[in-house]
Amino acid sequence: MSWQISADQIEDLARGAAVFGTGGGGDPYIGGLLARRALAAGPVTVVGLSEVPDDALVLFVAMMGAPTVMIEKLPSIDEVVEPVHALATYLGRPVTHIACAEVGGVNSTIPVVAAAALGLPLVDADGMGRAFPELQMVLPTLSGVTASPLALSDEKGNVAVLNTIDNGWTERIARVATVEMGCSTMIAGFSMSGVEARATLVDGSLSRCAEVGRGIAVARQEKTDPVSATVALLDGRELFGGKVVDVQRATTTGFARGSALIEGDGATTLTLRFQNEHLVAEVDGRTLVTTPDLIMVVDAETGEPITTEGLRYGQRVRVLAAPADERWHSSAALAMVGPGYFGYDLPAHRFDGTVSDGRAAVA
Amino acid sequence: MSWQISADQIEDLARGAAVFGTGGGGDPYIGGLLARRALAAGPVTVVGLSEVPDDALVLFVAMMGAPTVMIEKLPSIDEVVEPVHALATYLGRPVTHIACAEVGGVNSTIPVVAAAALGLPLVDADGMGRAFPELQMVLPTLSGVTASPLALSDEKGNVAVLNTIDNGWTERIARVATVEMGCSTMIAGFSMSGVEARATLVDGSLSRCAEVGRGIAVARQEKTDPVSATVALLDGRELFGGKVVDVQRATTTGFARGSALIEGDGATTLTLRFQNEHLVAEVDGRTLVTTPDLIMVVDAETGEPITTEGLRYGQRVRVLAAPADERWHSSAALAMVGPGYFGYDLPAHRFDGTVSDGRAAVA
Repeated sequence: MSWQISADQIEDLARGAAVFGTGGGGDPYIGGLLARRALAAGPVTVVGLSEVPDDALVLFVAMMGAPTVMIEKLPSIDEVVEPVHALATYLGRPVTHIACAEVGGVNSTIPVVAAAALGLPLVDADGMGRAFPELQMVLPTLSGVTASPLALSDEKGNVAVLNTIDNGWTERIARVATVEMGCSTMIAGFSMSGVEARATLVDGSLSRCAEVGRGIAVARQEKTDPVSATVALLDGRELFGGKVVDVQRATTTGFARGSALIEGDGATTLTLRFQNEHLVAEVDGRTLVTTPDLIMVVDAETGEPITTEGLRYGQRVRVLAAPADERWHSSAALAMVGPGYFGYDLPAHRFDGTVSDGRAAVA
Repeated sequence: MSWQISADQIEDLARGAAVFGTGGGGDPYIGGLLARRALAAGPVTVVGLSEVPDDALVLFVAMMGAPTVMIEKLPSIDEVVEPVHALATYLGRPVTHIACAEVGGVNSTIPVVAAAALGLPLVDADGMGRAFPELQMVLPTLSGVTASPLALSDEKGNVAVLNTIDNGWTERIARVATVEMGCSTMIAGFSMSGVEARATLVDGSLSRCAEVGRGIAVARQEKTDPVSATVALLDGRELFGGKVVDVQRATTTGFARGSALIEGDGATTLTLRFQNEHLVAEVDGRTLVTTPDLIMVVDAETGEPITTEGLRYGQRVRVLAAPADERWHSSAALAMVGPGYFGYDLPAHRFDGTVSDGRAAVA
């Protein structure tokens, strides 16, 4: 079932996406600005995964780099479409559909910009069902879809097309190029047929983002608790509430890395550790939830999602957790995005406090 | 006038090229090994610049990276041709001629390998008439020839095609990619027509390299001084003779940077400063010669050229200087390769001790 996304729906979409973005994926305000500009000429058609023809050419379009830099450099519409043109030329075939690599404030709206500017349909799906910091961290990688050829471009007009031996190498080379190009690039890659897209993407992501974003807006209008509304829509739970008392942050090797301390109402303290996205939540040294499940920080009153670069001393926040797509709990997936990959010697703790055994069935 | 280059001429070519390489461009032994292997099936035709058809597609093929790494990683023939194939596919046109970007022990023989493996003629010319450490530092850059599209590839099979706004950006992105890819890549780029090649390249470079290399070999056989023979063939002069007493060296950001002290027979000391290539020669703090003119270190007895990474404590050496192609003395060229570019607050000192005024006519 297809639907239209127009400028007036972008705020809900970007806000909902920023919730799923688990602190990363960029600022929803920035993402919304550009998408509204791109949609001024008319809406974009969003098509369900089931409607994508088998022989489609579906591409991920995204912004790569530290979200701390994205705040300072809003890309132009031309920049967003540049890597798509470069990749289509390289492939020698027309692109038929645009998809989101991840959900997040910017990376759910950048594909809207690309679809609008190119007059292409957008797929109601994404590659993660959340945001992760590295390019290879999408479900298609687990099924053998190659990131390359992947095109990246910067605001100055430099373009690179990468053709690598695996998706980890695409990440490595694209990352150093992105850092050199000013810490922020636009990328297009992960060419997929309709068959591959259906087999690997998370279905209905954009609809879910819009639903969560709308739920927050409705709760505010109705003076009910927007945070509870979000928890219910995510099938998640609230982990903690309190005040941000410390944020350590550094932009290194193209990532925003750091930690935040949140002081609870009792004598408890929650520690969040992040690399663009929240990866680990601990209370008083005890691990509560880790990647790949979703850890989200929202404003305690308004329910507004707060990105890792938006965390500030004194903010009253609530910390939520929700289940990741179950495919992220296979042993291969945990090797790619589990706590160990990011340097934490911990098993993956699910949103409900149980430990993931790595035996999840991969569809 | 075309000629054939066969395996038995490679030693002379590589040795002569290592002289012009001014300490950089890689080790002639390494370069020779691979070229002899590639020429086992038959010689390569070397054509004069005047014989290249106007509508030819001439490419530079070279190794990029710190020469310190080249010593440890001899590329395969497949690796050398990989970026040529990638670029030809990208351009959608067959490559007709291979040329050397620089003269140097490896970068004069890598193009021989490419020409042999691809069955293409090699142009008797190069882009510098010497070696320089950065990719944009070729005479074609000064005439507006673009480095991109430029393909680079590593031993693992990763390939990138860069399309940048200027040759400085090609260098920047290719350099960080090269460092990430293991500090050594094979590159192909600077596509030129025959008209462009004739207008910008240094004519007859390979013949000159072979002549200098042969001159050294003949002098050894005839028990005359091979260093004097080299000086005469280069129209240069001998600056200094002595013993290497100190070498400081670090491989940083993909370059071999450092300095060497040579103690003379009197109480004088010559200091060499290098970044892959020798850039500045000083005696007792007084600048003698700087880039763009050629500063070369050779074994005092055998005349064997010594690369910057081959400098060792105790070596008895002689330091020579020779004029660069006069086009390197224009003000635009000095801005790109003069001492100031490398951080030395000095005017360019020519091989004969006069100061370059930046007013050289560019042909």
